[in-house]
Amino acid sequence: MSFDAAYKKQAFKSVGTRPLRPDGVDKVTGRARYGADFNMPGQLVARVLRSPHAHARIKRIDTARAEAVRGVKAIITAADLPDLTNGDAALFAILDNCMARTKARYDGHAVAAVAAIDEKAAKEALGLIEVDYEVLPHVVDVDAAMQPDAPILDETVFTTGVEPAPKAPSNVANRSEFGHGDIEAGFAQADIIVERSFKTEQAHQGYIEPHACVASCNPDGTADLWVCTQGHFVYRQNCADLLGLEVSKLRVTSSEIGGGFGGKTHVWAEPVALALSRKAGRPVKLVMSREEVFRASGPTSATSIDVKIGARKDGKITAASATLRYTNGPYGDMWAELGAMTSFACYDLENVKTVGFEVLVNRPKVSAYRAPSAPMAAFAVESAIDELAQEIGMDAVELRIQNAASEGTRSSYGPVYGPIGIGPTLEAAKAHPHMSAPLGRNQGRGMACGFWFNFGGQTCTDLNINSDGTVTLAVGTVDVGGSRASLSLIAAEELGIDYQDIKAVIADTATLGYNDMTDGSRGTFSSSMATISAARNAIEVMRKRAALTWDIPLEDVQWKDGHAHAAGTKYGNLAPLSVKDIAAKSGNTGGPIAGHSELVADGAGVSFATHICDVEVDPETGSTRVVRYTVIQDAGKAVHPSYVEGQYQGGAAQGIGWALNEEYVYGDDGRLQNPGFLDYRIPVCSDLPMIDTQILEIPNPNHPYGVRGVGETSIVPPLAAIANAVSNAVGVRMAHIPMSPPRILSALNRKTGS
Amino acid sequence: MSFDAAYKKQAFKSVGTRPLRPDGVDKVTGRARYGADFNMPGQLVARVLRSPHAHARIKRIDTARAEAVRGVKAIITAADLPDLTNGDAALFAILDNCMARTKARYDGHAVAAVAAIDEKAAKEALGLIEVDYEVLPHVVDVDAAMQPDAPILDETVFTTGVEPAPKAPSNVANRSEFGHGDIEAGFAQADIIVERSFKTEQAHQGYIEPHACVASCNPDGTADLWVCTQGHFVYRQNCADLLGLEVSKLRVTSSEIGGGFGGKTHVWAEPVALALSRKAGRPVKLVMSREEVFRASGPTSATSIDVKIGARKDGKITAASATLRYTNGPYGDMWAELGAMTSFACYDLENVKTVGFEVLVNRPKVSAYRAPSAPMAAFAVESAIDELAQEIGMDAVELRIQNAASEGTRSSYGPVYGPIGIGPTLEAAKAHPHMSAPLGRNQGRGMACGFWFNFGGQTCTDLNINSDGTVTLAVGTVDVGGSRASLSLIAAEELGIDYQDIKAVIADTATLGYNDMTDGSRGTFSSSMATISAARNAIEVMRKRAALTWDIPLEDVQWKDGHAHAAGTKYGNLAPLSVKDIAAKSGNTGGPIAGHSELVADGAGVSFATHICDVEVDPETGSTRVVRYTVIQDAGKAVHPSYVEGQYQGGAAQGIGWALNEEYVYGDDGRLQNPGFLDYRIPVCSDLPMIDTQILEIPNPNHPYGVRGVGETSIVPPLAAIANAVSNAVGVRMAHIPMSPPRILSALNRKTGS
Repeated sequence: MSFDAAYKKQAFKSVGTRPLRPDGVDKVTGRARYGADFNMPGQLVARVLRSPHAHARIKRIDTARAEAVRGVKAIITAADLPDLTNGDAALFAILDNCMARTKARYDGHAVAAVAAIDEKAAKEALGLIEVDYEVLPHVVDVDAAMQPDAPILDETVFTTGVEPAPKAPSNVANRSEFGHGDIEAGFAQADIIVERSFKTEQAHQGYIEPHACVASCNPDGTADLWVCTQGHFVYRQNCADLLGLEVSKLRVTSSEIGGGFGGKTHVWAEPVALALSRKAGRPVKLVMSREEVFRASGPTSATSIDVKIGARKDGKITAASATLRYTNGPYGDMWAELGAMTSFACYDLENVKTVGFEVLVNRPKVSAYRAPSAPMAAFAVESAIDELAQEIGMDAVELRIQNAASEGTRSSYGPVYGPIGIGPTLEAAKAHPHMSAPLGRNQGRGMACGFWFNFGGQTCTDLNINSDGTVTLAVGTVDVGGSRASLSLIAAEELGIDYQDIKAVIADTATLGYNDMTDGSRGTFSSSMATISAARNAIEVMRKRAALTWDIPLEDVQWKDGHAHAAGTKYGNLAPLSVKDIAAKSGNTGGPIAGHSELVADGAGVSFATHICDVEVDPETGSTRVVRYTVIQDAGKAVHPSYVEGQYQGGAAQGIGWALNEEYVYGDDGRLQNPGFLDYRIPVCSDLPMIDTQILEIPNPNHPYGVRGVGETSIVPPLAAIANAVSNAVGVRMAHIPMSPPRILSALNRKTGS
Repeated sequence: MSFDAAYKKQAFKSVGTRPLRPDGVDKVTGRARYGADFNMPGQLVARVLRSPHAHARIKRIDTARAEAVRGVKAIITAADLPDLTNGDAALFAILDNCMARTKARYDGHAVAAVAAIDEKAAKEALGLIEVDYEVLPHVVDVDAAMQPDAPILDETVFTTGVEPAPKAPSNVANRSEFGHGDIEAGFAQADIIVERSFKTEQAHQGYIEPHACVASCNPDGTADLWVCTQGHFVYRQNCADLLGLEVSKLRVTSSEIGGGFGGKTHVWAEPVALALSRKAGRPVKLVMSREEVFRASGPTSATSIDVKIGARKDGKITAASATLRYTNGPYGDMWAELGAMTSFACYDLENVKTVGFEVLVNRPKVSAYRAPSAPMAAFAVESAIDELAQEIGMDAVELRIQNAASEGTRSSYGPVYGPIGIGPTLEAAKAHPHMSAPLGRNQGRGMACGFWFNFGGQTCTDLNINSDGTVTLAVGTVDVGGSRASLSLIAAEELGIDYQDIKAVIADTATLGYNDMTDGSRGTFSSSMATISAARNAIEVMRKRAALTWDIPLEDVQWKDGHAHAAGTKYGNLAPLSVKDIAAKSGNTGGPIAGHSELVADGAGVSFATHICDVEVDPETGSTRVVRYTVIQDAGKAVHPSYVEGQYQGGAAQGIGWALNEEYVYGDDGRLQNPGFLDYRIPVCSDLPMIDTQILEIPNPNHPYGVRGVGETSIVPPLAAIANAVSNAVGVRMAHIPMSPPRILSALNRKTGS
């Protein structure tokens, strides 16, 4: 860190206000440019041929007939994307996922791509590419894939993380374990033990904007990429690695983004577009259809989770364990590991153990989805805790308060917590009018807690002070949820100028240093660290300019309230200089004034939330309506409260969809049967109540303003909160997400024995 | 200055080599995007209505009929660009030149503009705008404009710089004076005095790419401008001032530039495009036609210059004076002042006086043209010096060597010179084989010297080191002559890495601090100062990272040859770390590595050249062919010699065109008669000989590598060198530029008395 980043209590002028969003007018007038809103002269249209099989060996691809189609300029297969990954398994997974090499590993896996002068020619060519498949047995269910007789997806995968090292290949890529204490001893102390199994189905992030890019590989070895992404610097690195380019030769510009939620954190089609452009010698535009988005991008893991929790009659949890099986799609990753880490993070436990299994299935490569892996783990754990409370006969909130982690708690995944918000959110829930509001017929109330780590990472910001004292702020974290507003507020706060005087832009990769992507709720957290650091550097420059202007020693210039002040009575006649004053003279005092920062934003504060939810279940149809919903979450410091509330509401809305409706439906043939928004139903406005929010502010001690990430935690509690509410409404423990009408009817039937 | 910028003699690895130009492939494959190569969705086409009168009061403009044309979205007049210039005369001139307010001041002066959905509608509307003019008497000739009975262009202009202040308005906006000593005493010491008058006609910069931009004023008060310019930060300032925008609200991106030569240093049509966009609520594209470029952009001054030089028989010049009258177009500026400053800058004179008059005429507002104002002054002075040499009977080179300025000379415009190159270029000319090569029939040889100040100015550079050790260099001086190559070489030199590992881009105004425009030959000079400073800052960061990696004190880390070295025998086992080594670990040693610099690049070294030229004049037609041409110029340090040679050749080529052919021809009605490349003839390849170059390197003491600007001086000597050659060929002193065939025939006729 290049500056003192410790939290200091302070009165804010700009931070905490709710000014107009800077991208608002652009977006409502249609002027904002998204991934598909960019074109280059001479650009070709790309279309991708995808496997109709869930699992098949690719024996031969013949593109001869397709190449003869008039207007076709390039056709590529995996041969045009040679393997440059040099043993990097994660990178190989990205490469193979972009374009199947030896095998199609899921329904929709790309096997070839065409660039043509128009869509008609491209489509005609797709139809003429001959792929000779040897169809292999497939498996899509997480539990089925772990059976000894399951078809093996990848003969080169041997489970890691187990002793002794296995001799046979497996669909379990890795086993991970977290915890401390002695769970057997803990369970022995318990008066009551709840042990249950849960399943969650695979959901898609449901971003409205499909993946889209325009790629141009130039004859001089440079390349340009316009793309919708959560991290253009990461896309630059991915594409440079996969195409064999030097990083400096590839310039990536990020478009506005119509939703990502983790689904746009690594490349999908971009290397394909670049390879097509390289082969065709012309720019190539590639826009996925909605069907392609569903079949071949996203999704989150489907899971199977066993939870066991033991407690004394007084409510003290004595032991907790969980076994978490997460689908990874066809490539091993760390999704179950994240589930295992987060499952019990809300609680202060003496004896805890979680085990995660990364399970390969013939489904699309899993991508991050907002607090990835945590909602499913929270669903299982928070359902079991609710059941435990019922068995003990204790209020569900009280039980959680009694066992909540606090400052100094050793977390279930290792680190010891600093000041955290789980206790305060629970206390706020207990005191919230929602908790005591009367319920109607067929209604139930549920609540649940959630945790997310939050991340920091590498971040760069350039802050330039213009000659009129206005400021241009170039940041590198893609604005997925309002960071241009929050960072402008923070720059205004630091410099002591108006929010309106600051214009923040997302700089392309050629004009700013490397930034990690916008994930881990790090956009405002990390870029605000760099913005504060850059602003403080600029203030140092301004102090020097003031000293020069006044011809007094630098140490006699103090910066306060956006002005340089000459300190001491001997300078009584010197009026303070504002940013505008100093900027106006900058040409004569040493040139333009700027501040810069490159840093690793350490110390992202962990985040906690408690949600309360009322549902009404129609016993005839099994349909569930959320009638009231309250989100209580610790923001550390809410920079722009309206955006923070929006994040809280957005996470809850996505959680509601996932809890009640969203799931990938596969046929026996392993083909996705609902790749569209008609059959994969995300909630629309009329499906949702007004989602109330309450922002708590427990300052993050590692951030000068106390900021924590706010974007992800809000999706963690909803599955559990809604499951608890539905379970309370119908009188049956709901253990399978989504709780779609058929599953609820089936539960009701189990209850009545019909 | 943020770093020690003094020159140090050193061995260069990258600087001085001739690698491939980074923009070459883009330009030859047509991929490079110029001003007209950009489009925005929904963009309108703009066309400008221009005055057919050289001087006319605008009594009324009625746009009603034009507005009714289908597809017309906005029509503006001066009323839509209210005067926000607040008494700033230079800014008012720019505003009034963009759109005539009370008067049309020259043929082609903009009076209204239309934005429509297509060109057809725009043109139809132009034809329906009714302008009620009161035609006024006009004057276009510089001497005529100074006559007492001349029509007055601007009743508010009273000559400045004279005592007592005049009581009547005048077409002379300002009188300036430079010099020292006592010229009357000096002339009294002279044995020989040459006194002569010269004229030069108005030329256009002749850039191949017309002015072009796409402007978008957005409903939220922000605006974007894509534009062909020599200085997008200056255009931002101009447009923000004229449109009443905050600087941060306007983002300007510079296109590739198809020539500027000073003609794209302030706004012409851009505020009009922005005002149209603001009114129409849609993006607007404005591309000037060639005719508009000639009638309403550029040009340089037409001049009338009297020179008087006295010398002793031994060749010592005892006194020199000049009176310089420069057309300014309709607005007062400082063109004659620059002529007065540069006229005798090559010489060491005890008694010298120059007086400049800025003359208003009904011609387009004069713009800078490569070493603006110096070529005409040099033509007059260097012609007179040649004549002086002939009268004394002394070799023209020897006479100049004897009187040449050198280190310590007090220049004719004031400052005392440091180490300079006029003497060395003259000595090199004397020794050059060209000087002694035999001449053929009807051939003549001439030589002449030239001077230009060179400028520094405000400059910002961001240098980012990528994780693979390649570098992105964001600079803000538009690349008009190879600065991306020269700055990459300089970054490579400083960092000790390969030229190929560096990618330089011209950053837009939102992502970099303010840069003065690319003029005054400052592109490579000033941005290299900032690049070196930024690179040295990055090296400091890398030293820290190496110290951290090795866990040794920072002071023990030395940077040498692109590597961090652990100094001292106690670290004998530590292998040096390269930029790539350090970059690869940057994510774990503190984050991305960058260097930044904002500075005022003081100390641009003055520049001198000597040109030698052979011509052959056809006595029948008066047509002149340049048969051999040699440029000898001091570069300080030639960073990329091929580009330096290209600048030398380009200046000579433009000078040849100006000397022999190019001129604005006005009719008695004050209308331009040759607004096109057919009638205004710039030299094409077949008109030119191979132009030989010789680069001298007298280091600029104020630049770490000794760099001086090289772009402009090369256009200063040609008018004089060619005039001396033609005069020698035809035996008559040629005192009127261009020496077009009719003027040469007329001179031949004077000689023969016919």
